[in-house]
Amino acid sequence: MESRKQIIQHLEDIANRLRIDSIRATSASKSGHPTSCASIAEIMSVLFFKVMRFSLHDPRDAANDRFILSKGHAAPILYAAWAETGLFPVEDLLNLRKIDSDLEGHPTPRLNFVDVATGSLGQGLSIAAGMAYVGKYFDKAPYRVYCVIGDGESAEGSVWEALSFASNNKLDNLVAVFDINRLGQSEATPFGHNMAIYQSRIEAFGFHTIVVNGHDCEALLNAFEEAKTIKDKPTAVIAQTFKGHGFPDITDKVYWHGKALGDKSESVINHLQSKIVSSKNELKALLPEVKVPPVDLSVRLSEPPNYSKGQKIATREAYGIALVKLGKTCDRLISMDGDTKNSTFAETFKKSFPDRYIECYIAEQNLVGVAIGAGCRNRTIPFVSTFASFFTRTFDQLRMGAISQANIKCVGSHCGVSIGEDGPSQMALEDLAMFRSIPNAIVFYPTDAVSMERAAELAAQYKGIAFIRTSRPATSILYDNNESFAIGKAKIIKKSSSDKVLLIGACVTLFECLKASEILENQHNINARIIDPFSIKPIDSETILANAIEVGGRIVTVEDHYPEGIA
Amino acid sequence: MESRKQIIQHLEDIANRLRIDSIRATSASKSGHPTSCASIAEIMSVLFFKVMRFSLHDPRDAANDRFILSKGHAAPILYAAWAETGLFPVEDLLNLRKIDSDLEGHPTPRLNFVDVATGSLGQGLSIAAGMAYVGKYFDKAPYRVYCVIGDGESAEGSVWEALSFASNNKLDNLVAVFDINRLGQSEATPFGHNMAIYQSRIEAFGFHTIVVNGHDCEALLNAFEEAKTIKDKPTAVIAQTFKGHGFPDITDKVYWHGKALGDKSESVINHLQSKIVSSKNELKALLPEVKVPPVDLSVRLSEPPNYSKGQKIATREAYGIALVKLGKTCDRLISMDGDTKNSTFAETFKKSFPDRYIECYIAEQNLVGVAIGAGCRNRTIPFVSTFASFFTRTFDQLRMGAISQANIKCVGSHCGVSIGEDGPSQMALEDLAMFRSIPNAIVFYPTDAVSMERAAELAAQYKGIAFIRTSRPATSILYDNNESFAIGKAKIIKKSSSDKVLLIGACVTLFECLKASEILENQHNINARIIDPFSIKPIDSETILANAIEVGGRIVTVEDHYPEGIA
Repeated sequence: MESRKQIIQHLEDIANRLRIDSIRATSASKSGHPTSCASIAEIMSVLFFKVMRFSLHDPRDAANDRFILSKGHAAPILYAAWAETGLFPVEDLLNLRKIDSDLEGHPTPRLNFVDVATGSLGQGLSIAAGMAYVGKYFDKAPYRVYCVIGDGESAEGSVWEALSFASNNKLDNLVAVFDINRLGQSEATPFGHNMAIYQSRIEAFGFHTIVVNGHDCEALLNAFEEAKTIKDKPTAVIAQTFKGHGFPDITDKVYWHGKALGDKSESVINHLQSKIVSSKNELKALLPEVKVPPVDLSVRLSEPPNYSKGQKIATREAYGIALVKLGKTCDRLISMDGDTKNSTFAETFKKSFPDRYIECYIAEQNLVGVAIGAGCRNRTIPFVSTFASFFTRTFDQLRMGAISQANIKCVGSHCGVSIGEDGPSQMALEDLAMFRSIPNAIVFYPTDAVSMERAAELAAQYKGIAFIRTSRPATSILYDNNESFAIGKAKIIKKSSSDKVLLIGACVTLFECLKASEILENQHNINARIIDPFSIKPIDSETILANAIEVGGRIVTVEDHYPEGIA
Repeated sequence: MESRKQIIQHLEDIANRLRIDSIRATSASKSGHPTSCASIAEIMSVLFFKVMRFSLHDPRDAANDRFILSKGHAAPILYAAWAETGLFPVEDLLNLRKIDSDLEGHPTPRLNFVDVATGSLGQGLSIAAGMAYVGKYFDKAPYRVYCVIGDGESAEGSVWEALSFASNNKLDNLVAVFDINRLGQSEATPFGHNMAIYQSRIEAFGFHTIVVNGHDCEALLNAFEEAKTIKDKPTAVIAQTFKGHGFPDITDKVYWHGKALGDKSESVINHLQSKIVSSKNELKALLPEVKVPPVDLSVRLSEPPNYSKGQKIATREAYGIALVKLGKTCDRLISMDGDTKNSTFAETFKKSFPDRYIECYIAEQNLVGVAIGAGCRNRTIPFVSTFASFFTRTFDQLRMGAISQANIKCVGSHCGVSIGEDGPSQMALEDLAMFRSIPNAIVFYPTDAVSMERAAELAAQYKGIAFIRTSRPATSILYDNNESFAIGKAKIIKKSSSDKVLLIGACVTLFECLKASEILENQHNINARIIDPFSIKPIDSETILANAIEVGGRIVTVEDHYPEGIA
């Protein structure tokens, strides 16, 4: 058994080896952020070799502690830490930023040890909080979640949304590590090394706070051990560090953000080598103490839609009904909302499954971040709802979510001008443009409650980001309860051999198409064909084109959205 | 001269009259948020009749104090307050939410007493901070800025970004009024009436804080007077209030969010009437003490582009050059950035005009909000820069900015996969989809430094939201220095009478088109026509279609963007 002093020495050696690896990798790629790596070298060393528990055999095992590098530009030291654990050869680090390597400039889940992409700053803590929420309340497992946040990125409001969420929900399995290295990209941060400002803010946001010298392995180890003893509160380890720590003449200098060390590399590496006592890593990563079983995410509507033709019900209301039916067949289907649950009808789900509903209040960035985290490692199927217009607030989270291969279901109510008197601030008129642009996202715009229920079912079964646009006004039931729907398949609502024009609408505008077709027929003797696209992305261009050709190429689309970005 | 006691009585009477007006208006429209109005009735009364200085003759006079109702759903009481000042007849309030009335469900600048649209929550304080920054540092005028924020919306991270910005910049002319009425839309807020939590958080964020009973006019008046004495710090008045205060059986009840009082209206109005001592308003709004002259926003490049054909320079670098030239002809052109100024080249402007550059650090929502505020009342032309991908974070601010008739210029660098090794998190691949969807926004994607300078000039001269997409790699100068450019006009780069295909590209992809045309010509004997669209919105469909027809309808577009939403 080694002494505490020996262990600390090993941790210091590892930290310096991680620094060297970070320099070598960024020198090979001639780009990257070695100084941003250096400030967290001791944090990484202590976390990976004496604090976190995880299986190298399966870096995504459900039992493992989670680690999120919110300051994603420090990717090289994340890769170096995993190489140092033995997950892959240290020499691979020299492939950093090569086009055929998954060791990209910022981490993505193309790597088996990364859960989510980071690199757009300020997003990691919400995701970590989502994981911690699942760990504490659904998995009820002892795994812990660690998130390293830069001081520059702590200016992002989303960080404060996440802090508030984490303390409100008593996530004592979550540790936020703030790397206070004083320097941003283009200049010093506004607070420099004023640790008291960070501490008072983070403490006011409900965290247990520990301010430490971030280059003191023993202090860090003590802090993380203390965090494990804190109940009903998350902990923030607020580490005073120096950018480029250990790099002579480079440490703490603003010029050195995001630059490989170039011809200074060799001398800096030699300097770091000279501080290393034991050339071999004597520490092994700790293994999880308990197993966490996989969960079953298979899901379907517990019973088919049950409406009468002509009955009027808003698709947003049918969403609540669908969610309850889905929740009955999958106990890992969860719902969250940003204090609009009585408008989006997520409340219907909450009434049936109060323990599976997460209230995120009016903080949409965190709402989507928590969902992304909750969906990681196939632990839950998160349904996220708010007004469709307010998802615009989360475009960066959604964009990154696509890179993260996130599995979340977004349901946006109150689309279009059909919401009426509340005015344009509440109307989603750009939601389709936004969600369509997200790679691999699927988008539904159901017309009635029957198709709404099926859209929710298809979204739940789809692995990836799905968006369903729901409407405020009640619309008539159009489809039989046993009608089947598919991703990318449109429905022909009305058809005759003498049709002269194709009308395309969805929900409120589809009903306008039906009215228009009656006028055309009765007053002008013109037959109109009508298509309900149902799936906006992928759009069923095959059906639309074939029918457009049959009616002589005349198409009228009727849309409740700004003109741009619809299809 | 009336006694303080009499004045307080008048303010209380006004507050109750504003409550009655809010009930009447929402009862007439059968929708709206009378209880959210009631919680701020005394705040509105005290601000409008004893604290703020403004001219009714011109509600947008530069000398006036500014007022922003961040909790825009309390619009009826904002309208009632202005009616009570005498700006328009009280009877007009009954037109609330009618389709032919500008008294919409949430405020917009279609009303001459509203600077910006609110209703998407958490955005007001950034805008207020932008106005206060202009007042303190550019106008150097005594007008003050007041912003009323709901407790529910204070969960939005953007509020905390704004608080931090305001205190960092010592905006002692800014007062944030927090309406802590305990209730959100769908349930109680997480902190209820725990005033200490709000105070500790807001104080930690650098504000002077005053906790008051928000229904005590004298306490409010004292607080606002105290705020005027505080130097180098903004003040937050944190008001404990009750939703529906003064409405018997409705006060402090969660069920009553966003509902007209219906058949309870009459009894509530009678109750409020019974509390009013003096039926006539004895108080006049205070006038501004000094004049604030208009500013000249006419702007052009101080000198034409000055490059040599074939010279290579990135459009992002030319942006910095253009901004300096524009800044020379207009001393109210300002620049702001979110700690990426050395990448976007806003730094070039900062070096020439340090006093006209505002560093907003890594908080893009606040960055855009501050710009919107700074641009209000034609006080400045704000240019906002960051990586184009990070503007996704501000989509809600931009969407609301369009409703606000905002005049801001967004310049996003690092577009497309051409940025290279940093990876997808830093690549803008949805920026055109996003900015195109914004009503009345114009979008430029310049190919070289010459067209970049002209895009910046056209953007500066355009009244509205403009976006310029800039590129990281250096590209060759293609245009003559004296080439002229216009909004909505494309450039034909290469043309012959035997062209068989039209290639369309911009910046990096335009140069790929040029290479492709050489290969087509030399190896396949096919002549290609090439168009540089320059203006992506509006797109020059006339030129594109005419040329497409001439080459036989064969078009190849080459784009560095996700497939959706480009055009």
